Amino acid sequence: MNTYRDIFKWGDKREAQIDEGTLKVIQKEFGFTDEKFKDKYLVGDQEVKLNHKCQLDQIIIDQFIKIVGAENCKIDDYSRASHSYGKFYAELIKLRKGLIPTPPDLVIYPRNEEDIIQIISICNSHKIAVTPFGGHSSVTRGVETPNGGISLDLTKHLNKIIEVNEINSTVTVQSGMYGPVFENYLNNYGEKYTCGHFPQSFEYSTVGGWVAAKGAGQASTGYGKIEHMVLSLRVVTPTGIIETKTYPASAQGWDLYTIFIGSEGTLGVITQVTMKIHKFRPNQTKHASFIFKNFDSAVTAMRNVMQSGIGVPHLFRISDPEETDIAFKTKNFEGTIADKFLNTIGYKSGSRCLMFVSVDGDKAYTNHVISSIKKIVKKSGTFYLGASPTKKWLEQRYSSAYLRDPLMDLGIMTDTLETAVMWNNLISLWSSVRTYLKSREKTVAMVHISHVYENGANLYFTFLSPMKTADELADYESFHKGLVDTIHANKGSLSHHHGIGRTLAPWMQNELGKNSLDLMQAIKDQLDPNGIMNPGNTLGLKP
Amino acid sequence: MNTYRDIFKWGDKREAQIDEGTLKVIQKEFGFTDEKFKDKYLVGDQEVKLNHKCQLDQIIIDQFIKIVGAENCKIDDYSRASHSYGKFYAELIKLRKGLIPTPPDLVIYPRNEEDIIQIISICNSHKIAVTPFGGHSSVTRGVETPNGGISLDLTKHLNKIIEVNEINSTVTVQSGMYGPVFENYLNNYGEKYTCGHFPQSFEYSTVGGWVAAKGAGQASTGYGKIEHMVLSLRVVTPTGIIETKTYPASAQGWDLYTIFIGSEGTLGVITQVTMKIHKFRPNQTKHASFIFKNFDSAVTAMRNVMQSGIGVPHLFRISDPEETDIAFKTKNFEGTIADKFLNTIGYKSGSRCLMFVSVDGDKAYTNHVISSIKKIVKKSGTFYLGASPTKKWLEQRYSSAYLRDPLMDLGIMTDTLETAVMWNNLISLWSSVRTYLKSREKTVAMVHISHVYENGANLYFTFLSPMKTADELADYESFHKGLVDTIHANKGSLSHHHGIGRTLAPWMQNELGKNSLDLMQAIKDQLDPNGIMNPGNTLGLKP
Repeated sequence: MNTYRDIFKWGDKREAQIDEGTLKVIQKEFGFTDEKFKDKYLVGDQEVKLNHKCQLDQIIIDQFIKIVGAENCKIDDYSRASHSYGKFYAELIKLRKGLIPTPPDLVIYPRNEEDIIQIISICNSHKIAVTPFGGHSSVTRGVETPNGGISLDLTKHLNKIIEVNEINSTVTVQSGMYGPVFENYLNNYGEKYTCGHFPQSFEYSTVGGWVAAKGAGQASTGYGKIEHMVLSLRVVTPTGIIETKTYPASAQGWDLYTIFIGSEGTLGVITQVTMKIHKFRPNQTKHASFIFKNFDSAVTAMRNVMQSGIGVPHLFRISDPEETDIAFKTKNFEGTIADKFLNTIGYKSGSRCLMFVSVDGDKAYTNHVISSIKKIVKKSGTFYLGASPTKKWLEQRYSSAYLRDPLMDLGIMTDTLETAVMWNNLISLWSSVRTYLKSREKTVAMVHISHVYENGANLYFTFLSPMKTADELADYESFHKGLVDTIHANKGSLSHHHGIGRTLAPWMQNELGKNSLDLMQAIKDQLDPNGIMNPGNTLGLKP
Repeated sequence: MNTYRDIFKWGDKREAQIDEGTLKVIQKEFGFTDEKFKDKYLVGDQEVKLNHKCQLDQIIIDQFIKIVGAENCKIDDYSRASHSYGKFYAELIKLRKGLIPTPPDLVIYPRNEEDIIQIISICNSHKIAVTPFGGHSSVTRGVETPNGGISLDLTKHLNKIIEVNEINSTVTVQSGMYGPVFENYLNNYGEKYTCGHFPQSFEYSTVGGWVAAKGAGQASTGYGKIEHMVLSLRVVTPTGIIETKTYPASAQGWDLYTIFIGSEGTLGVITQVTMKIHKFRPNQTKHASFIFKNFDSAVTAMRNVMQSGIGVPHLFRISDPEETDIAFKTKNFEGTIADKFLNTIGYKSGSRCLMFVSVDGDKAYTNHVISSIKKIVKKSGTFYLGASPTKKWLEQRYSSAYLRDPLMDLGIMTDTLETAVMWNNLISLWSSVRTYLKSREKTVAMVHISHVYENGANLYFTFLSPMKTADELADYESFHKGLVDTIHANKGSLSHHHGIGRTLAPWMQNELGKNSLDLMQAIKDQLDPNGIMNPGNTLGLKP
């Protein structure tokens, strides 16, 4: 029996258990009794049944079957249901409730680019919506199908490496390849390489999804965001194929490939991407971790590192005081002798902040950068904690996302939002958002900086709060709206790396200005005149 | 008396003299006799007189005068003539001949953005062409006015710094500011900064021109090309103002600011730009220079440096054997004891290649990178020449361009072209282009790499050859066409940093593909529906 839980849980092995440390925090913060812990919120274990029949004519379906074969053309309830949503909190609630009002009519697994060209051509003629589908880890309602149509799942067949070029230090890869397969391939190829892109969703996201949603990995401070990694790409649009050439840089008009990075499926189907790769030398990577007396001094230290011309770290993070405290609590560090010592020498819980650093590259470089960072951050009154906390963090770096399901089982609302901001607005944005989050009763609000630039950084907000289970969706939506409004009013971008999807679409015109959104629409209209590509207000474009 | 020579010569002080070393090379390579040296080609010292009257109605001119004042609205022959061309070789020939068939009707110096908005609005209503004009150092026919209209000179008034933000490490500057004024301002501001952008045209180019033409400076290997420096910009288009927000990075749709980098005036007038700045610490900069036995080993060494994860140099150059030999000859190094020593130990003239390196930043970083580079290039069999050759090169780095006028006075055709190419195609492209250039009798062909990336580099070609003065333009055009064809056929981009203008426009559709050029045209049509912005096939767009 295929259940709704099978759709939203993280792959086969991902029925994560909440560790004891986290349970204690929940108990204390939310006042949960033992009774409450037994009381499971909608777990979504009912069988998937759709109320909406496929709206496509059989004659059209037969055309698709003729192209890809019946085995790659799925019309059953479970296939359609499992392609209806990503991993946005409100989507997960809907799945738990069995609410799927607008599933795709058909799920198609194209075998190659030629299939995609033919499918898009049919859809364009009949104005059938097409939504490209990768790892379905979108947290912005980016893969929903409000207009039904085709969910075009690229993961089954378009998942091959086309070429690794060791002279050029590039890889050309099909868009449907999952992160771990991609990285593993590179790690074992020739002289051994890494792509350097490790988003939180790494294990359940694809190269095409990274590009379409303009993602960032945890080592982005050194390797860059995805837009700094891509050299060229190939896209099937309703108007035809756009393939950009692979140059290290050029000056032949504006760079057209950038238009597809962050296009979120609205312009066409990205079929392949050529990206930079780097030597993979994990044994030469150097780690360090530090604790600061407060967030302000940690941020200043981080900024000084980025603006000092000493080279760059790859992983570079600070947790704010609440996130630091919770990390110490859940890792059972609180109350230890070491904890007491830190408190005694001025690194007090409630204000202290953790910093994690890793530097990749040549051994002499990693040594140089770590030692330069140590010198710089010392001026901000830090205490060096050794390499081990950063290493430990790296070992479990993808796992926190998997706590979402067991937390929601407990009736806990949990979501993450992120923004980018220039250094001069960072502290005020952080403080305003915290004030907003804390205005809700019983809300845990953890913040970190995890993608750092010379000119600013991101802020990543994680919040947990008991659901108002009578009215979960409306409660969440109004809380979420206030949060985005607060970020926007405090000069943060709508997103640094999650993307916009449909969730943040209502803010786009105000954020970009009408002329800019009109320009995006004109680009959309040129490539997709019938509006079939991921329609329904994605990115704030016309439905 | 204002002459044509006043228009094409480089500013007031730039009547450069050819040094003795260069004269010897010319004598030898071209077989010039003493008589020939006395024989001056058209020097352009006749008074400027236009045959074309301003085509605008007085009523329209009066509207412009009302906006900017009569002192900022010029209709005299010399103003119009001096805004007719950039510094492309064929343009210089035309100036020497007094050929200006399509001057602008009017030169306007807007005082501020509000003036520009009003001017564009009038021009849009009356379909009058508008060509933004900066330092007029374009070498691609980027500022010509084939449709007449307005040359909008931004250098007189739009030349202010709007803000230096030391916390964010950014500067916001108006587009008409010249390079030296801009850099000097930053060098002396607060904690002292540099923009890091030093194109060959530095002394006669503006920030807006850098962005519009997608330029690169001599330290681009470390600081990036202009597209890596810009964070946001503001553009007056016929459809309205586009202003992008300043974030260190973001994921809210594709990055619209990138569309204006390389737009070459076809979409609107860039009025201000926010860019990254960096600490200015010339005393901590480290230099090195090396000689290699041949081009292949120098290129391999360069690639290894870029792909080794040791940090990056800022200036990074190799001269090919012919350029190296000519440098040695013109600097009177040939025949010295040092020269003989180098030949003896295997660095033979005819195949040896010079490499220049500079690293900016924190002292420990510059030391680290230089010492890492020394280790890496040693494996390619290099001989270290010390810091001094690089320092000497830096001292005269802008001056070679100023030789163009006295060389042309001698009847020598001289031009530069450049391309970007992936590492795996670099040697074959270099070799094919050299074969092509050398197929012309008496042609000096110097090549260097000056902008380097992990994935490839540029190639910069300089050629000198006696003009066929009976038919200079046709001779040049056919030679130039063959050269671009050769680059294109050998997988080089049409440009790495000069841009396209009108000179390379005929190759654009073939290079980009029809769908991509159509996409560019759709963007153009959205922002400039009447086609008034720098019209006449710029970038291969519709006239």
